[in-house]
Amino acid sequence: MRNFLILSGPNLNMLGTREPGIYGTMTLEQIHAAVRERATTLGVSVECFQSNHEGALIDYIQQQRQRAAGIVINPGALTHYSIALRDALADAALPTIEVHLSNVYAREEFRQHSVIAPVCRGQIAGLGWLGYRLALEALTTLVNE
Amino acid sequence: MRNFLILSGPNLNMLGTREPGIYGTMTLEQIHAAVRERATTLGVSVECFQSNHEGALIDYIQQQRQRAAGIVINPGALTHYSIALRDALADAALPTIEVHLSNVYAREEFRQHSVIAPVCRGQIAGLGWLGYRLALEALTTLVNE
Amino acid sequence: MRNFLILSGPNLNMLGTREPGIYGTMTLEQIHAAVRERATTLGVSVECFQSNHEGALIDYIQQQRQRAAGIVINPGALTHYSIALRDALADAALPTIEVHLSNVYAREEFRQHSVIAPVCRGQIAGLGWLGYRLALEALTTLVNE
Amino acid sequence: MRNFLILSGPNLNMLGTREPGIYGTMTLEQIHAAVRERATTLGVSVECFQSNHEGALIDYIQQQRQRAAGIVINPGALTHYSIALRDALADAALPTIEVHLSNVYAREEFRQHSVIAPVCRGQIAGLGWLGYRLALEALTTLVNE
Amino acid sequence: MRNFLILSGPNLNMLGTREPGIYGTMTLEQIHAAVRERATTLGVSVECFQSNHEGALIDYIQQQRQRAAGIVINPGALTHYSIALRDALADAALPTIEVHLSNVYAREEFRQHSVIAPVCRGQIAGLGWLGYRLALEALTTLVNE
Amino acid sequence: MRNFLILSGPNLNMLGTREPGIYGTMTLEQIHAAVRERATTLGVSVECFQSNHEGALIDYIQQQRQRAAGIVINPGALTHYSIALRDALADAALPTIEVHLSNVYAREEFRQHSVIAPVCRGQIAGLGWLGYRLALEALTTLVNE
Amino acid sequence: MRNFLILSGPNLNMLGTREPGIYGTMTLEQIHAAVRERATTLGVSVECFQSNHEGALIDYIQQQRQRAAGIVINPGALTHYSIALRDALADAALPTIEVHLSNVYAREEFRQHSVIAPVCRGQIAGLGWLGYRLALEALTTLVNE
Amino acid sequence: MRNFLILSGPNLNMLGTREPGIYGTMTLEQIHAAVRERATTLGVSVECFQSNHEGALIDYIQQQRQRAAGIVINPGALTHYSIALRDALADAALPTIEVHLSNVYAREEFRQHSVIAPVCRGQIAGLGWLGYRLALEALTTLVNE
Amino acid sequence: MRNFLILSGPNLNMLGTREPGIYGTMTLEQIHAAVRERATTLGVSVECFQSNHEGALIDYIQQQRQRAAGIVINPGALTHYSIALRDALADAALPTIEVHLSNVYAREEFRQHSVIAPVCRGQIAGLGWLGYRLALEALTTLVNE
Amino acid sequence: MRNFLILSGPNLNMLGTREPGIYGTMTLEQIHAAVRERATTLGVSVECFQSNHEGALIDYIQQQRQRAAGIVINPGALTHYSIALRDALADAALPTIEVHLSNVYAREEFRQHSVIAPVCRGQIAGLGWLGYRLALEALTTLVNE
Amino acid sequence: MRNFLILSGPNLNMLGTREPGIYGTMTLEQIHAAVRERATTLGVSVECFQSNHEGALIDYIQQQRQRAAGIVINPGALTHYSIALRDALADAALPTIEVHLSNVYAREEFRQHSVIAPVCRGQIAGLGWLGYRLALEALTTLVNE
Amino acid sequence: MRNFLILSGPNLNMLGTREPGIYGTMTLEQIHAAVRERATTLGVSVECFQSNHEGALIDYIQQQRQRAAGIVINPGALTHYSIALRDALADAALPTIEVHLSNVYAREEFRQHSVIAPVCRGQIAGLGWLGYRLALEALTTLVNE
Repeated sequence: MRNFLILSGPNLNMLGTREPGIYGTMTLEQIHAAVRERATTLGVSVECFQSNHEGALIDYIQQQRQRAAGIVINPGALTHYSIALRDALADAALPTIEVHLSNVYAREEFRQHSVIAPVCRGQIAGLGWLGYRLALEALTTLVNE
Repeated sequence: MRNFLILSGPNLNMLGTREPGIYGTMTLEQIHAAVRERATTLGVSVECFQSNHEGALIDYIQQQRQRAAGIVINPGALTHYSIALRDALADAALPTIEVHLSNVYAREEFRQHSVIAPVCRGQIAGLGWLGYRLALEALTTLVNE
Repeated sequence: MRNFLILSGPNLNMLGTREPGIYGTMTLEQIHAAVRERATTLGVSVECFQSNHEGALIDYIQQQRQRAAGIVINPGALTHYSIALRDALADAALPTIEVHLSNVYAREEFRQHSVIAPVCRGQIAGLGWLGYRLALEALTTLVNE
Repeated sequence: MRNFLILSGPNLNMLGTREPGIYGTMTLEQIHAAVRERATTLGVSVECFQSNHEGALIDYIQQQRQRAAGIVINPGALTHYSIALRDALADAALPTIEVHLSNVYAREEFRQHSVIAPVCRGQIAGLGWLGYRLALEALTTLVNE
Repeated sequence: MRNFLILSGPNLNMLGTREPGIYGTMTLEQIHAAVRERATTLGVSVECFQSNHEGALIDYIQQQRQRAAGIVINPGALTHYSIALRDALADAALPTIEVHLSNVYAREEFRQHSVIAPVCRGQIAGLGWLGYRLALEALTTLVNE
Repeated sequence: MRNFLILSGPNLNMLGTREPGIYGTMTLEQIHAAVRERATTLGVSVECFQSNHEGALIDYIQQQRQRAAGIVINPGALTHYSIALRDALADAALPTIEVHLSNVYAREEFRQHSVIAPVCRGQIAGLGWLGYRLALEALTTLVNE
Repeated sequence: MRNFLILSGPNLNMLGTREPGIYGTMTLEQIHAAVRERATTLGVSVECFQSNHEGALIDYIQQQRQRAAGIVINPGALTHYSIALRDALADAALPTIEVHLSNVYAREEFRQHSVIAPVCRGQIAGLGWLGYRLALEALTTLVNE
Repeated sequence: MRNFLILSGPNLNMLGTREPGIYGTMTLEQIHAAVRERATTLGVSVECFQSNHEGALIDYIQQQRQRAAGIVINPGALTHYSIALRDALADAALPTIEVHLSNVYAREEFRQHSVIAPVCRGQIAGLGWLGYRLALEALTTLVNE
Repeated sequence: MRNFLILSGPNLNMLGTREPGIYGTMTLEQIHAAVRERATTLGVSVECFQSNHEGALIDYIQQQRQRAAGIVINPGALTHYSIALRDALADAALPTIEVHLSNVYAREEFRQHSVIAPVCRGQIAGLGWLGYRLALEALTTLVNE
Repeated sequence: MRNFLILSGPNLNMLGTREPGIYGTMTLEQIHAAVRERATTLGVSVECFQSNHEGALIDYIQQQRQRAAGIVINPGALTHYSIALRDALADAALPTIEVHLSNVYAREEFRQHSVIAPVCRGQIAGLGWLGYRLALEALTTLVNE
Repeated sequence: MRNFLILSGPNLNMLGTREPGIYGTMTLEQIHAAVRERATTLGVSVECFQSNHEGALIDYIQQQRQRAAGIVINPGALTHYSIALRDALADAALPTIEVHLSNVYAREEFRQHSVIAPVCRGQIAGLGWLGYRLALEALTTLVNE
Repeated sequence: MRNFLILSGPNLNMLGTREPGIYGTMTLEQIHAAVRERATTLGVSVECFQSNHEGALIDYIQQQRQRAAGIVINPGALTHYSIALRDALADAALPTIEVHLSNVYAREEFRQHSVIAPVCRGQIAGLGWLGYRLALEALTTLVNE
């Protein structure tokens, strides 16, 4: 069974309480549960990981990449400056989809540039928790092509 | 039954022949067919329109917006400079998802800035024709919330 | 009797319904009527034209310029990028006044630069539909100097 | 009877002699007279003030703002850097129209940016002394709405 | 017999009357005639097309590209912003030469950047109507290599 | 007894009435009184001066600097462009603390750059009138070191 | 009793030995002691935390924010790029004061931009360890208003 | 006898005490005396004026320009932003030489741009008080040509 | 008989061996021969000169300009920074055409700006050695107008 | 015996598998071994450390700096944004050489700027694992001077 | 007797014929003669040198610097890019004055930046050939201080 | 026996006397001798060349490249603008290492950009004359791989 990594960066563990007007009212645990449920339907498995530490995300990607068929990642604020995370994803050489809960293109100028996007397969932004689910669906389709 | 507009900008009528390595091998007609099929499953209807004319896209949005519940738009090259199209979408005041077939963030610098994105609900990029289908799914979910 | 062209660009046909807080509640037809009324008092005639198509505006200027003594133009979003429209106005070599309903200088950064302004005689911004009328008054005075 | 302030910044006291090709041949006194005449017809009063001192213009605005219904201001070169004047106008909280005699958008790059414009209701540029008169007409209309 | 497209963008239909000091005194019809004459000598055919509409130029390129061996294009003002036209030319995958009548590098800053040039084989600028003829000669030679 | 200058630039004389949401409800006189009171406790004296004139502030600094042990200055809008005021402060060669009532870093882009700051000892921003008092406390401590 | 967090970022644990000419001779422990002493006088309590790890600072803020009435933070070098830390502070939704020991505005260009400042209540820079104490005083006053 | 204006801007009245390493040890009075002495030898007269007020410098230029054959001006910090002073000099239409005591091109970035220079005949920088004298010599020669 | 200078800058003497994919397989001698041949047909003469030394190119232009009716120049890398060469060409006051073998607009960013172009009559780029020949043809035509 | 720190940043633990075309086929362990071997010949010792955590690298530098005579550091992606790492190196006040395996100056724009380089003694880039060895040789020589 | 170098860069050997409206009608030989004459009066000697070759100017400075007390240099177009010339002047460590015949600050943007100025003692611009003479006078005075 | 070129650009012939604090006290001849000595040990030969003339360096590279196995080059100030030198090195198609004596990344902004680096194999900066020797060692190793 294909396995996908569902990664989330800094502060996403606070979802639900964090500016719900922007990020929605679901907690990260609830998103993980919904994604896992969808994974079951799709016949794939997922492993979910969140950290506030750039280094921990890189460690995780390095350790899990052999066992994964693709990555869904919401890098949080690291999106905008973590070239180290970008390099880890590029090294992993797995199909990766970047997800943002909010429409970053309608927010502060600095949120409109991603150092991660160029090494990804694609990006889904602004669709709330649904973005995670759609990304998983897309990855599942893409790796089956 | 909710109705969604599926709009495509300049040169997208050439899909299938146009740099297939970047844009895939499906024609726009085939994408429209696939999206219509999905619409049927979702219990919604779609109207598909493509034009190489900025003005024609604006005319179309103005005329159809009363009869639509949302818009999926791949503005093609107009993404990067058509403030007139942006204003038409903003005026329409419908939930809109911007779609790009290729990962624009891994291409030329000028393709990485969208004047359309700030007035949309979200964006899906780099997932090929699947982007159109996922956008329709997302819109259907969002307007039902 | 002197004749003036009253031109309006993309999306201005939606006035009245379009973000009334920014653009006012009068429709473009009502503005045209008010301008025509004022023209009568001033002893001049006006021809009004709106299009969502950059090319159609250029065609119109080329065709009418021989019969016109001046131009009042609200280029809408084309203000910010249509060098083709700018060239058409420069070619026409008529006294031209650029009008904006809203105060573009208090809006998004990109709305604060006009590629049209350098080939005009002057600019009136932020005075709503009144801008059209004042522009006509000014043109009438200027061509009589 | 409503009262409006007609303010002019540095070097405008030299009008008439100052590069007449750009600024016209009327002196500031003549412009003031013409504006006063128009004010009479409109049933309003005006108070005219010019200074080469940024601080004096700010002092004047602070002292007169209680007795005024609106401001017509040609800030001269202060347009481009006097954030202090901008703040004084913003504090006054009166409808204000910025006037430029010449079409600043067809001149040096640095004359194309106004730090004053964002706190005004609107702007009239390039119409010579007529700009003052049209601004007064517009203000009179606007405050009666 | 090889066939070449001779395309001209907005306002070029006004040649002859349009700022003759910059653009010369020949009309576009006269240029087309001179180019056709040269084509006869070279043993090739040409089809000439001008439009003020970006979309019409794209439509024309899409429709004619199968029957053409190369393109000579003077995009007029679209040179500087029409990424849609650029994409149409790139999709056509024909040897293309960009022509400018005037030396754009000695004019306004914004005329010195072409979004079209990177997808062309070459560029000829500043040589007046001769540029069209030399471009045709060059294309004829190049496609015969 | 050590003496400190408490200086305030353009428009700060309007405190209390000026956008109270941003600048607070205390008048400048009340702030001066509160600072004087604190000075008494600290065993130092203060001289307070406000002007809307850049030149007057410079004159004052030049005249008082011999009799002062330090400066607390809120340059108002001059913060962003008055290099002349900067030079006056640098010439005075006294320990100086720049104070801003509002958090300038959360406001317009142009308010986030101070030409004054590099010649000061430090800066206090966003703490309302308290900033004046804390600056005095800090200066008193610093000059006693 | 109100509780405040006193946070310090990378390298601040080396204070005392680290470029004393710029940062002073007190160690971070001595600063913490001085701040605690002042807290006692003010009738509040403080919890002090330093880390070289961005992630650890974010973890700490997330864990302690429920028990805190405000934050004094010297983010060290993270000031200039840690959008993740900024988001953690914004999520915490507590009154926060950013402190810098040195006058960052008189140092390298890159030290003059803070990504943290826009989500803070205010900033104190250049006053050495005193900045921590003044920030605590200000917070105590502000939360009592 | 030809008359020249010798003008000095903000803070130049402090010469001699002001950073002597950069600006030299002569006071402005001593410079004026030396220039007057040289004027006598050259058979011309000079009038010297210094002010910390931008407006006062402009007033002075407007009042004296009829009686002057040329201007030597050291605008001090106004060099870098006073477009109003620039306009006053341009209006005066007299041969003008800009003088800087220090070599501004070896100092801070912002001191390397003069808004005044483009309306002057020439510039002398970095030669200390000698610059004033050489400028007078040059003007005397130039107006005699 | 009219005489034209055919000038080539640094590294063009290596043509044929130098990246043939970009610059073609003809040596500079072969290009010169082809151009001379064409000159004979056109009834004009040419003098060809290449140097790796900016100064030698300038010396040559200064010495030959009296005997020349026009210049064809491929400045090689000097295109992008040699303002001295630009000035030499401007001083020569001869009709000049700038030639580039490759399409510089499809290469590195820095190759897309020419300091030479603004003082030329026109530019031909991307047409290989043919560019030299077409430039000669154009010059011959232009000087006969 | 002098001791040197050999530090490597994020993702360098993946060497050997990571894009071997760019980074070579040796693992970090093999590089460490080769460097240790060279150290023995040079009569110095080395301590090698790698981490994906910015904070861990800073901790390590702070703890080891007393026992070290110099540092060889390949900061990986942290090169481009970790001002915290820069500050840690500057605080350590040891001769430091920055090493990059690949020639960063021939890669993406963002890889061409190092925030670390200004606080180092020198830099070696593009020489693969050899860079580490040469850096050690250089340090050994430099500290013996 | 003190000796000064009078250096002139590319194209200055063409003075007199070169755009006399900008550069005057005197030849370089005439300027040299006038400067020599003035040198005699001042009791100093001069050596004059001009070259179109950057390298030749550097060679000359290196060879003559031991025998010179100062340098007057008009670097011509090299002003704007020759860092090599700048380094040669900095190495020479002689008091140097940069001279420009025309007011470069009223010309093209690129002529307003000098890479030479920061290593000079001062600059004289816009005073024609007089600039050379005044520079010599200033140097003579300065080296006698 | 493999042969390497050791090239040095403008002003490097002055080493030893030139700002020894930055560039060290060895003359270029001494560096050449040390490099030759090292070459002997390595079993390779070197040819050393220095010139202040960009063109002479290019001539030399073109003439010697057939007989060389690699290049060590310190381009001096040409590093920052000589695209002609860059092209010569790229044409030579030899492994090349760029050397800088000083740490250019800790100096003026303009010294931090190399137009040469992208066509080199690698770069060594800041290690004084040792850089030349290490570059030779590296080249010897690299060409033996």
